Amino acid sequence: MPEKKTMDAVWLEDGRLQLRQDIPVPEPGQDEALVAVTQAGICQTDLELIKGYSAFHGIPGHEFVGTVSAGPANLLGKRVVGEINACCGRCPTCRDRAGCVRHCPERTVLGIAGRHGAMAEYLVLPSANLHEVADNLADDEAIFVEPLAAALEIQEQVHLRPDQRVLVVGDGKLGLLVAQSCSRTGAWVEVAGHHPERIGWFPGTAMRACADAGPDARSYDVAVECTGDAAGFDVALRALRPGGTLIMKSTYTGRLTLDAAAVVVDEITLVGSRCGPFRPALTLLVSGQIQTGPLISARFSLDQAEAAFARAAQRGVLKVILGMKAE
Amino acid sequence: MPEKKTMDAVWLEDGRLQLRQDIPVPEPGQDEALVAVTQAGICQTDLELIKGYSAFHGIPGHEFVGTVSAGPANLLGKRVVGEINACCGRCPTCRDRAGCVRHCPERTVLGIAGRHGAMAEYLVLPSANLHEVADNLADDEAIFVEPLAAALEIQEQVHLRPDQRVLVVGDGKLGLLVAQSCSRTGAWVEVAGHHPERIGWFPGTAMRACADAGPDARSYDVAVECTGDAAGFDVALRALRPGGTLIMKSTYTGRLTLDAAAVVVDEITLVGSRCGPFRPALTLLVSGQIQTGPLISARFSLDQAEAAFARAAQRGVLKVILGMKAE
Repeated sequence: MPEKKTMDAVWLEDGRLQLRQDIPVPEPGQDEALVAVTQAGICQTDLELIKGYSAFHGIPGHEFVGTVSAGPANLLGKRVVGEINACCGRCPTCRDRAGCVRHCPERTVLGIAGRHGAMAEYLVLPSANLHEVADNLADDEAIFVEPLAAALEIQEQVHLRPDQRVLVVGDGKLGLLVAQSCSRTGAWVEVAGHHPERIGWFPGTAMRACADAGPDARSYDVAVECTGDAAGFDVALRALRPGGTLIMKSTYTGRLTLDAAAVVVDEITLVGSRCGPFRPALTLLVSGQIQTGPLISARFSLDQAEAAFARAAQRGVLKVILGMKAE
Repeated sequence: MPEKKTMDAVWLEDGRLQLRQDIPVPEPGQDEALVAVTQAGICQTDLELIKGYSAFHGIPGHEFVGTVSAGPANLLGKRVVGEINACCGRCPTCRDRAGCVRHCPERTVLGIAGRHGAMAEYLVLPSANLHEVADNLADDEAIFVEPLAAALEIQEQVHLRPDQRVLVVGDGKLGLLVAQSCSRTGAWVEVAGHHPERIGWFPGTAMRACADAGPDARSYDVAVECTGDAAGFDVALRALRPGGTLIMKSTYTGRLTLDAAAVVVDEITLVGSRCGPFRPALTLLVSGQIQTGPLISARFSLDQAEAAFARAAQRGVLKVILGMKAE
């Protein structure tokens, strides 16, 4: 346990961010651990939270790497990343549905719902949520475990086959993780976005930028919508062959209007997709199969959080990292 | 081939129906057969066509039973039902995707797109689309092969397991076929609708009417939307557990607005579902496992088509049948 009683933290309330220096260092409950945060990433969901995606107020942030400073002996002092859904462990969803604990109706979600997040010197999560990070995985790579796990959730939900054509709509930080991980299956992966040059950042992957004219209509087996806006959804839908599958991988604020008749006539499947499995994300990162270096656009310190969020919200900016100064 | 050159037919144009007596008897092309229609059913899609669901004009109707009066020797004189999608047989969809011919981009669809339908004394379909009807299956049962096949498409697309809870939204003619066929899997099937007494019409099935207060929230594994309206869609979505599957089984006119964030957060899968396989529909009907008698509300002759459509559009009315007088 740290000796200090208060800590620096980013505080979100009523759509406004501020640095506060008076936040009590959280105390881990039973089966929980205290983690000294080394760095945290800004995700699209964080930007949506400011716009009012949910009523959350408190410390945002759910992508992090840190060191366990209080908790079970086997984790103490270890460098960790953490799954963000803290479930109750007692309800029917937790008890009866293996692998569905991320849907526990009583869950809290780090920095998103009912639980303070990672943009602070310390955070608390259930010990069971933490995964030790191998020594050869840098903090700058480990910060991508959570979003890469979300990308891999696609393959938990949908059987991607090597003979399929996959379109990833959006070449931002999420789209480029999705495209890399999907291309590892052997599927033909194309990325539709405004920055075709980015594909060249990832040598040794089998993904390709889409043609200038945009994706071929009605030809892809699977489309993954990674932009979070209705225009991206329409691009994905138009690109699918009849019987194809559209993965809704982004956080959407507000409602989405779709051509229901087209979905029925073409027998399209739409799959909502959220958090995913950490273990395979760590495996792919540790073995160097997913490249994250090109995805980092900027670094800020915790007291520059407002500027960091402004930067993260600019067009064309990829991952923005907040570095901490915890002892 | 009949000797007469013209026939009676219902004609749909600009949202208006009329009986015409001057329509040329169609001539079957290569690999096609001429069918003397015995009776045709009015489907929700037919009602939507009048409201402008598509730009179709001509003879509507795609649910029928009839007798082959010109065509290959093995079918001549046989009582038949017919699959409604006539594909080109040459495009990549037809050649490379077994079972996907119903999605051929060049297809015509009986009474719906590019091909005159069944509300006439005669129709033409590819011979390969026709299925002989066993002697012990009455015309009044055979008329339900097409909509029952559409109901069975659900099980072509989604693996229904016996330990699952299925909610069917809508207790109209389609919902009651869907509920019966789903209940044959052993799954727990509940039907949400305005006529709970209808469940009693189907003794020996394992389906149940929903509680008066409506379906339990967030508890069903699968929900099948059979109403074709946005309110039904919302009922289905709210009833699903996280990770559940919503089958969009109805024809929708216009667009549908959905809470995309909820679909993503709860990882809901939406499945557009259209035409299905005829062979298992015939099997279930011939073996008496699906009951259709209670689903017939009224009969009209072809020259009463306008009244028949008006009746079919009334609330609470189930299948309305148009009887022909073909030689």
